[in-house]
Amino acid sequence: MVTAPDLEQMADRIAAGNRRALARAITLVESSRADHRTQAQELLEKLVGRAGGAIRLGISGTPGVGKSTFIEAFGQHLTAAGHRVAVLAVDPSSKRTGGSILGDKTRMEHLARDPNAFIRPSPSGGTLGGVARRTRETMLLVEAAGYDVVLVETVGVGQSETTVAEMVDLFMLLLSPGGGDELQGIKRGVMELADLIVINKADGDLLAAAKRAATEYRGALGLIRPKTPHWRARVRLASALKGEGIEEIWRDITKYREAMTEAGALEKQRAEQAKAWMWQELTDGLVYALTRDRRVAAALPDWEARVMSGEATPGAAADALRALFLGHSEA
Amino acid sequence: MVTAPDLEQMADRIAAGNRRALARAITLVESSRADHRTQAQELLEKLVGRAGGAIRLGISGTPGVGKSTFIEAFGQHLTAAGHRVAVLAVDPSSKRTGGSILGDKTRMEHLARDPNAFIRPSPSGGTLGGVARRTRETMLLVEAAGYDVVLVETVGVGQSETTVAEMVDLFMLLLSPGGGDELQGIKRGVMELADLIVINKADGDLLAAAKRAATEYRGALGLIRPKTPHWRARVRLASALKGEGIEEIWRDITKYREAMTEAGALEKQRAEQAKAWMWQELTDGLVYALTRDRRVAAALPDWEARVMSGEATPGAAADALRALFLGHSEA
Repeated sequence: MVTAPDLEQMADRIAAGNRRALARAITLVESSRADHRTQAQELLEKLVGRAGGAIRLGISGTPGVGKSTFIEAFGQHLTAAGHRVAVLAVDPSSKRTGGSILGDKTRMEHLARDPNAFIRPSPSGGTLGGVARRTRETMLLVEAAGYDVVLVETVGVGQSETTVAEMVDLFMLLLSPGGGDELQGIKRGVMELADLIVINKADGDLLAAAKRAATEYRGALGLIRPKTPHWRARVRLASALKGEGIEEIWRDITKYREAMTEAGALEKQRAEQAKAWMWQELTDGLVYALTRDRRVAAALPDWEARVMSGEATPGAAADALRALFLGHSEA
Repeated sequence: MVTAPDLEQMADRIAAGNRRALARAITLVESSRADHRTQAQELLEKLVGRAGGAIRLGISGTPGVGKSTFIEAFGQHLTAAGHRVAVLAVDPSSKRTGGSILGDKTRMEHLARDPNAFIRPSPSGGTLGGVARRTRETMLLVEAAGYDVVLVETVGVGQSETTVAEMVDLFMLLLSPGGGDELQGIKRGVMELADLIVINKADGDLLAAAKRAATEYRGALGLIRPKTPHWRARVRLASALKGEGIEEIWRDITKYREAMTEAGALEKQRAEQAKAWMWQELTDGLVYALTRDRRVAAALPDWEARVMSGEATPGAAADALRALFLGHSEA
């Protein structure tokens, strides 16, 4: 796709804030072709020293909660204040064509046209792990390009919230003023991930319900052990439609960052996240290398069949395949 | 621990239903010592042909729902009908000493003394994956020993329900008649795992509440896509204390087994479970072998430090460590 000098140039252009170079680099990072992977790693190595400068925010909200409207209002508020905002997404169910979250940039039409904002849909298809890796790498690229606020959005599908929470500094949960009904629908584990709960649509007829919901969520949060001793999760009301509450939310985020940075907790959290990511890459890479091994590929169908019929134990099959791969008969 | 002829004898004794041999074999399977692992694999290979004959049931219920009382009543009902029942547990938080789930067999004192029942607490400590592997292997052993009903219990902690659901034929969710409050507390994903929901304590003052809860849960189940086209999840009332509803639950389980067997779906489900287990073993084994590699061990601290400080990308570190392990510089 690109030659070595091209990579050098691409890195320079990204560092200079060139949007086309950034978009091309993200496409490279998203490719699963082996040569593209190698190039992507080289590019990331050139840029990793420039990354890390942004505040990384995760945001989750089920459809109907007004997430696009919120992100648009939130993003515009930030760019107006001089920030550069990148919006990424983690949605393993998304397809580039069709109902992609964010695929349709018209959902955030103002932000999409804002020169200080950069919107990138979720990498299409693949496992949650694969989508997550590509989003993490994209995060490094947009940071190297000078975006100082990165927003990673996800829909509440399966494990995607946990995955996003593990790659950001602060995780925000966006809810509608549904009260009890709403509370029901949230998995407990997801509440536990939240550093900030935002009840959107707190305007007009729904304001009273939003206030009641806030009280409920504050109560629910009181029962949960805080993620960190340096921050207690907060509940805020917002109306993305009217642009209300956005300023307070950004102030909370700033306070969170200050408190966590001062305690050394933010740096530690990022270090742990990077380490966990390294192990994930290592594991995935090993399994990939194994599946590409000729001896393994030749023996695999037979072992799988024997395991599936109950003729061999999974452990024995795993031992045999691993030994084939590693080229000696270690047990 | 045991020599090769010992393993042959141990396998024969287990097949003959010898409880002491079975208990010793489980201890072997639970050990993480490398030589024990090898022996455990050999033993399992000798016995795998005798395994698979039981119906495998998962049961989850939070503390306070009367799970022990239910399992005791359910187990005694089955042994009275001529079945041989094994009760295993998956609880990654359990320690052998202290508050172990089932560690205290007095929680099921009648069943614990029943010659046709075998109760084994959760393997102590370790990750959920490790606990799960040992429980899966123990399941093969008790099946080889002729137990025809295996009950795997778990408390609703994190991912443990999913893990148990992935090793059994039918997953049962035990609930108390809490109605709305109760419904709130259940993660949606867990409802989706259930083939059978049992509302326990449906007696006396709580009977009316239990009936209301049953209606709620039937409604909630109606919104969930069935796991299989061959079975619709059911909601049953039970009073473990009075022994009521147990017979109906067993009848449901039998019907489930018949419907799934007839459709070929049970065999397929087990085959898929075994295959997934094989891949898990293979992945875990590869990572374990990597961590034991001298070159990797020597280079690991430096790479981890560079990744944690943001100096190197996780991908580059993973590539380098993998290349060290595999002994050549593949990318």
